Parts: sequence; C-alpha cells; structure tokens
Amino acid sequence: MEFEINITARYAETDQMGIIHHSVYPVWFEVARTEFIKTSGITYTQLEKNGVMLPLSELTCKYIYPVHYEDNVTIRVNIEKLSFAKITFGYKVILDGRVMSQGTTTHGFVDSNTFRPVNIKKVMPDFYEKLLKEVQ
Amino acid sequence: MEFEINITARYAETDQMGIIHHSVYPVWFEVARTEFIKTSGITYTQLEKNGVMLPLSELTCKYIYPVHYEDNVTIRVNIEKLSFAKITFGYKVILDGRVMSQGTTTHGFVDSNTFRPVNIKKVMPDFYEKLLKEVQ
Amino acid sequence: MEFEINITARYAETDQMGIIHHSVYPVWFEVARTEFIKTSGITYTQLEKNGVMLPLSELTCKYIYPVHYEDNVTIRVNIEKLSFAKITFGYKVILDGRVMSQGTTTHGFVDSNTFRPVNIKKVMPDFYEKLLKEVQ
Amino acid sequence: MEFEINITARYAETDQMGIIHHSVYPVWFEVARTEFIKTSGITYTQLEKNGVMLPLSELTCKYIYPVHYEDNVTIRVNIEKLSFAKITFGYKVILDGRVMSQGTTTHGFVDSNTFRPVNIKKVMPDFYEKLLKEVQ
Repeated sequence: MEFEINITARYAETDQMGIIHHSVYPVWFEVARTEFIKTSGITYTQLEKNGVMLPLSELTCKYIYPVHYEDNVTIRVNIEKLSFAKITFGYKVILDGRVMSQGTTTHGFVDSNTFRPVNIKKVMPDFYEKLLKEVQ
Repeated sequence: MEFEINITARYAETDQMGIIHHSVYPVWFEVARTEFIKTSGITYTQLEKNGVMLPLSELTCKYIYPVHYEDNVTIRVNIEKLSFAKITFGYKVILDGRVMSQGTTTHGFVDSNTFRPVNIKKVMPDFYEKLLKEVQ
Repeated sequence: MEFEINITARYAETDQMGIIHHSVYPVWFEVARTEFIKTSGITYTQLEKNGVMLPLSELTCKYIYPVHYEDNVTIRVNIEKLSFAKITFGYKVILDGRVMSQGTTTHGFVDSNTFRPVNIKKVMPDFYEKLLKEVQ
Repeated sequence: MEFEINITARYAETDQMGIIHHSVYPVWFEVARTEFIKTSGITYTQLEKNGVMLPLSELTCKYIYPVHYEDNVTIRVNIEKLSFAKITFGYKVILDGRVMSQGTTTHGFVDSNTFRPVNIKKVMPDFYEKLLKEVQ
C-alpha cells in the first residue's frame, strides 16, 4: 500500500540557491513515515513508550528537480522491505504529478534503553503483522 | 567576564534572501553558551547527568546587519543575571568589529526528571559559585 | 483579526530533553505568518517577486510549557503594529486551550536588491491597506 | 587526497533518542566539502559568484554508531569521482578512531541563473584541474 501526505515547503527550509536545502528531504521523509506508521493503529510515540525505537541505519536520496518555497508537495511512502530486524521505507516527493526526488530509509528495530537490536515479531507481534500487510 | 567563540556560517543556514536565517542565531547562542559553561569546569552533558537541565524560558534577538555564508563570526557571551532559580545570558554576534546582532536567553534550572524548578545553589553549590564569579 | 494554523511537531524538531527545541518556534511563527499574509490576497513569494522582502529586525519568545513530538499545536498570529517602515506580528502557540509559548517578530520592509528600507504604503498601497485592516 | 575538519555536535542537532538526528549528517558533509573546496584556492562563495553552483543530485549515508551532543567528530572528505558534468565526494564521520557513519554526495555543475548543466572543464579549467589532482 502507498500512503501520502502533503507538506508546504517552509521559508526556513530554503537556501541561498533559492531552493529547498537537500538536508530537508530526510525530515520530510520522517514526517511522512510518522503519519504512515500511525495508520497501523500505533503512533511512533507509543512505539517509543513500548521500548522500541527505529534509528536510521541507511539513507539514500536522489534529487531530480528542485522544490521551492511555498510549493505544496506530496510525499508518498511505502514499505519496500521488512524483516524481524529491520525495515526499509521508500519515498517519492511529487509536485504537479512530477517526481521531484525519491529516496529510501532503512531502520533497525532497537531497544530504547540498550540501543541493541530487537526481534520486532517477538516484542510487538501485532505491529509486525500490520507492517507486513503493507509490504504487498 | 566575557567569553567568545568563532563560528563559520554554514550553507544550510542560509535562506533564499541569501542571508543566514534568523532561526539560526538561537542555535549559535547555544553553541557559545555550551562552550562558556565548559569554562566553569563542567560540561553541559555532565550537568544533565547531574539531573539538572536549563530549558529556555525566554529569548530575545535583535538583527542589525545580515550575516552571509562563509562569514566567520565571533559570538561573545556573558552572564547578565543570576539567581538561585534562573540565569540570563547575553550574546553579541560580531563580524569585522561590528555587532551584527545581539540577544539574550533566560533559563530556569530544572530537575531533568520532573522538569520542576530546582535551587541551583542547593543542588550544585560549586557550579553556582563559579557562575556567580562570571556575573561581575 | 486573529488567524490560526495547525502544526504537528516533527521528530527532527525534538532535542535530547525530549521537547521541541526552542529554535523551532521562530520557524513555526514564520509558517503561520506566511499563511496569514496569504489571506491578504498575496503570497510571500509574490511579495519577493515585487521586490519587497521582510527580514526580521527583532524576535522575542517566551517559553511557558514544553511542546512534544506529535503534539498538534495551534499557532495564532495577529498584527500588533504597522507603520510605513515596519510591521510587528504577535504569536501564540496553543495546545488543548493552553498557551504553551508566545512571541513577536518585527520586520522592516526592504528592497530585495539593495536591502534598503522602502515605504510600503508607497510601493504597495493595496497590500498596505489590507495589512492595516488586520491591525484593528 | 583526504582532507578533514573537526565539528563539535550541537545541542540543537540532538533528537529525543538522545543522539544526533540523521538529517544533520548531510549538513556536516557540506561543511567539510566547503572547507575542502577552499583548499583548491577558491571558496564556494566565489564559485557561485562565477556563476557555477553544485546542487546535490544524490545523497547516501550509512549510520553505523550514534553520535552524541558535545562529541567532537572528525569529518574526512575526498573526491571519489569527477567528470566534466559532475562530482562525487565521499565522507567518513570518525570518533576516537572509529567510523561512526559514512556517505557520499553527487553534484552536477550547473549555471546559477539557468540551473542548466555546465561543462566545468570549459567554464573553469583551473578549478577543474585542481579538483582532478585531488581524485588520485
């Protein structure tokens, strides 16, 4: 399943090239991912309270066309891969039907106290099942 | 006493006006404040480990001249006021001898678990004494 | 007139105190200001294309209660003062009916090429009239 | 050739996991890249004044170990690939001899007015030669 949200580019997100700075896209990806996770019936805040965190292990992003201040872009997010240990999300930033940039983030499931890997299927089986359904 | 550090303006800190975005100055103030606190013989990290945090209660900033990418500015910081409950720092951003902007931040001393006010003189008397010397 | 928008706090906006970092509030103020200006029938982007920019000359912010990740806050904005040379906006960040923080930003009207002050009533009389109506 | 700079992690760069937020690494890469370019005898500011910009076309980053507030990291940067049309930089974030994260950024050489590709060897032959020497 694909899920999408809309974001209006902020002035503070521009740089002196007059475009949205490239370091902003991971932040937008995160906003989309947060909302996407929420559709599984659990917020990221609850996830952290359950002792599970999803720090990034890898990020990729291709910048195809620049995005500008006040552009209202769509961020489309889906789950590309899921295992007991980690999850990869895919993203597309779309403006007027055109893919402006696209990327991926990979996250390990870790214990919030020890930062050590956890088996998400064991510690949160329902959450895992919900994510699994989104992969197809 | 006045203390100063140097910071080179980052590209990511510019906006489409071609100047450093105003939301960056509180971050620079914080960098200067961190280094200033370190001169008291304790790092901000140790402070937090001691169970004390200094969240902001007030911020003011006057923007006089714009700062640009790659400008190497001096941030001058001093303690303007100190009580058992809170502390006010003053800042000046200086380029080529000219004050580009100036501001203040006020912070309450709070317990890191409860976020409730603490009497800094009671919980960390040595640290309080060191800060007090900086006021004159 | 008061105008308001809603913003959901982003993960990237948190700090290690577990609260929204104080440097984020000026960014939220800007988002609210941008949308507010739009209601006058002109976008900030069009304003800049007309050769007028509104760089900050002063910022104040009081932090009363901390805001957390995924909190959906209301930013209320109004015009506090208006002259031919500058404008002051007032802001309130509200959560569940409680004012979490409040602030002001003052901006000079300047020429986008020279960065020198312009008389906004002369260069954009309609825009000035619309802003003036908002003051009452 | 490898070039390196040191950066102390800022408080504003932490998130509520208590680690440096992943969106900060591209900013650090940029700081290192800027200083690296400067060693070629030209600043990035001069490059832009010459009508050439280097917007990102691709970013990758692997996060191996988390970095914390007040950590003083070394950012090592080198040129991985260079053609007339684009350049790829490689980065390593190092703390106490350990690679905490590593990444790459790829940039097209573009005209600052039109955002269209330029042949860097033609428009800035000396700069190109200097970059070329760094590849080996």
